[in-house]
Amino acid sequence: MNCNVPTDIVFSFTGFATRGGGTDEHNDGWGIAFFEGRGVRHFVDYQAAVASPIADLIKRCPIKSTNVIAHIRKATQGSIALENCHPFVRELWGRYWVFAHNGDLKNFAPVLDGAFRPVGSTDSEQAFCYVLQQLQRRFGDQLPALPALRSALAELTSEIATHGTFNMMLSHGGALFAHCSTNLHYIIRQYPFAQAQLSDNDVSVDFSQVTTPNDRVAIIVTEPLTTNEHWTRFAAGELKVFVDGAPV
Amino acid sequence: MNCNVPTDIVFSFTGFATRGGGTDEHNDGWGIAFFEGRGVRHFVDYQAAVASPIADLIKRCPIKSTNVIAHIRKATQGSIALENCHPFVRELWGRYWVFAHNGDLKNFAPVLDGAFRPVGSTDSEQAFCYVLQQLQRRFGDQLPALPALRSALAELTSEIATHGTFNMMLSHGGALFAHCSTNLHYIIRQYPFAQAQLSDNDVSVDFSQVTTPNDRVAIIVTEPLTTNEHWTRFAAGELKVFVDGAPV
Repeated sequence: MNCNVPTDIVFSFTGFATRGGGTDEHNDGWGIAFFEGRGVRHFVDYQAAVASPIADLIKRCPIKSTNVIAHIRKATQGSIALENCHPFVRELWGRYWVFAHNGDLKNFAPVLDGAFRPVGSTDSEQAFCYVLQQLQRRFGDQLPALPALRSALAELTSEIATHGTFNMMLSHGGALFAHCSTNLHYIIRQYPFAQAQLSDNDVSVDFSQVTTPNDRVAIIVTEPLTTNEHWTRFAAGELKVFVDGAPV
Repeated sequence: MNCNVPTDIVFSFTGFATRGGGTDEHNDGWGIAFFEGRGVRHFVDYQAAVASPIADLIKRCPIKSTNVIAHIRKATQGSIALENCHPFVRELWGRYWVFAHNGDLKNFAPVLDGAFRPVGSTDSEQAFCYVLQQLQRRFGDQLPALPALRSALAELTSEIATHGTFNMMLSHGGALFAHCSTNLHYIIRQYPFAQAQLSDNDVSVDFSQVTTPNDRVAIIVTEPLTTNEHWTRFAAGELKVFVDGAPV
């Protein structure tokens, strides 16, 4: 989720978490990270999201954020363990970076001789470390402007995607980058707001009752979360950058 | 807390969290990090611990860990914000490192031109980045053996402590390092276990009922947490290393 004002993710997370062992088989752990200013709240668990007391807390206690990345895991590489749960968090240029990956990379063994090493044993964390290492090599000591960052990430994600399926999301709190390799959808919710009905739960919300006319929220997800809204599918190979609730 | 078998911290955390706005004035946020294998569960909040739903969850849902670092904050430098809450987490040598600091550093502006930059604005996070930067410079590409790490940390913590009060804890999941500048106490709980009574809450536990004879747990804290046990005070300037529930 990427938005222009801090927004809680309870509605979307409710549907999403149900796929973590309920309506879908992604039950090898889950995680979520919320930016609040420059800080991050990071929750990971190797239990299925449907059975997790922390997931339950997140549904009960709305946390407001402008950038959130959540993940439900189906283990392809790496054991079911806390260190292998997404999203992963690292610091670069005095900013936290949050990363999650859906897919599977084959014959992917990048040389990691910079400042970032995987703690766990997933292809995903290797990809994240590689992305940050290459960004640091290209831009040196300072966070570059968004267009330069976008073009570097477009190159890097294309390169990694040659190794397999690389649907991924990355954020440093200012923008959310989403790369589609096989499957990714998004929706922009803005004025005039309407009602939405989750596909995985018997839950609906009338967004006009809980928003102001200036609010804008982008939700990006593998499979659409609602049954009655129009979701846009990413093209294969596409990298989109979301800022203030809209693609730029 | 450092132990030889995964242990929950519910008893000690209950007393400790009460000091976060209840029996003490450390109410500018709090945090806790639990190692589970190489993974870390990290919770931070800028609310007082006594009022935090996440602190409440940790008391209700025991998380078992061999290394836990918790912190309640009284802001001296840096605003009350999520990015300024301890403990801080970074990765070095493919391990997560967790750090918390109690105290205040003056005229402390280390040159941070390595791989670690503060995200927030505390002296504490600067000290943490400096420690990791210097460890990386000294040991290069690999985690050194414990004696070498200990002696490097003894030097670094002494150097930083010349700038003010530097009571700190640091762990990479294998050992817990504690440096006392002004105030730090520890206790080792082991067979034969006895009853303990919290000083901040009307709560007691009979550890003989919830342990096995092989369990050993070290609790290190600024002020003793219980009224009926013998706590050992650290000497000023002392660095202790705890492994498997005992100082080494």
